Amino acid sequence: MRTKFQEQLDALIDRLASMCHLAGQAIEAATDALVLADLPAAERVFDLNEQIEALRGPCEEQAMTLLALQAPVARDLRQVITGVHLVADLSRMGGLAQHVAESVRRRHPKHVTSGEAEQLLGRMGRLAGGLAGLAEQVLRTRDPELAAELDRRDDELDSLHHQLLDLIQDPAWTDSVTVAVDVTLLGRFYERFGDHTVAVGRRVIFLVTGEQLRSNLSIGVDQQ
Amino acid sequence: MRTKFQEQLDALIDRLASMCHLAGQAIEAATDALVLADLPAAERVFDLNEQIEALRGPCEEQAMTLLALQAPVARDLRQVITGVHLVADLSRMGGLAQHVAESVRRRHPKHVTSGEAEQLLGRMGRLAGGLAGLAEQVLRTRDPELAAELDRRDDELDSLHHQLLDLIQDPAWTDSVTVAVDVTLLGRFYERFGDHTVAVGRRVIFLVTGEQLRSNLSIGVDQQ
Repeated sequence: MRTKFQEQLDALIDRLASMCHLAGQAIEAATDALVLADLPAAERVFDLNEQIEALRGPCEEQAMTLLALQAPVARDLRQVITGVHLVADLSRMGGLAQHVAESVRRRHPKHVTSGEAEQLLGRMGRLAGGLAGLAEQVLRTRDPELAAELDRRDDELDSLHHQLLDLIQDPAWTDSVTVAVDVTLLGRFYERFGDHTVAVGRRVIFLVTGEQLRSNLSIGVDQQ
Repeated sequence: MRTKFQEQLDALIDRLASMCHLAGQAIEAATDALVLADLPAAERVFDLNEQIEALRGPCEEQAMTLLALQAPVARDLRQVITGVHLVADLSRMGGLAQHVAESVRRRHPKHVTSGEAEQLLGRMGRLAGGLAGLAEQVLRTRDPELAAELDRRDDELDSLHHQLLDLIQDPAWTDSVTVAVDVTLLGRFYERFGDHTVAVGRRVIFLVTGEQLRSNLSIGVDQQ
């Protein structure tokens, strides 16, 4: 029998999945903006980020309503606190997508970068979008296999990130330091976005099962 | 009359102040490591970060014990959740100090950078250490004036960060792209460290008074 607590927990997770969907759209739009120097796409990111931030307060309220329903016991408290961490992750993902869009806006109508660096960043962006989609699925299905898959795909993102840093440090790379600074920060934003999707997957599994997902990965997000 | 809830809240805040103290020591040691290419200082950062991480679980437990004492009402819940966000900020500050130390270890026995860039990073590091000290004082005194002072000093840190990025993008700057990549990331780590100290100040004031600290600043941390 489903309790009122479980029902409200499900309602919260559904709303978090909507936040995650928006974060995925934001990083996709930010990547379009980046590879096409497309200002309207960058503006869409700001709009999506506002939508994400608008969901944040209601999600935290909903998390607290969960507790107000009953005298708190350890596990319920832990679940609510995990829910609050999830809100923070998803909000940060929106913020990172916005940082990418800000970089595009700053250099417009020029491209932030070009050639292989732009291609690699584009691939990182597509992977990041895929990670957000997968994190959304984890929220919707609570499938631990999918959460583990997030870990694996985030490794691919990290690998592209290393390629990107190697590329711009190669003597054959002749762009300016300004471009190097932008590319370094963009790489970092995508990497952090990926870290947060992995954290989302782990937290959902913990929230639903009370069990930590086994992994040797250190995710460096605000809860490991 | 002080309630049991208030007593336990005070005990939690004391422990968070200890975490903040360690985070301040960590960023100071990381900055010593950076400006002196001092490997033992870098190793101290790893040790300090372990101590910070060791406090994290107990702090989260303590936050939950706060709630277990009584049927939760809105304000208490909000306080506990703010406490949980504080733990996350302080932990992240330790993580950022560690990123600085990792950069030093990667380039040792060479300096990561030199000249004016190293000096600016050193100044950013001292400011970041000062911000951590101030955040610790806010935790210990709950003084909203000190929390506002955090905002102001973080502006100085942001200003040094802009100077740093301008410096390495100046045509007169002749170091390699590898150095530019490192300097860009180090600048970002210090900037984020500062953002989290500002967030700590605001959260403490909210936790203690239930009031948001007035500010137009957007701190871009996981709760504004």
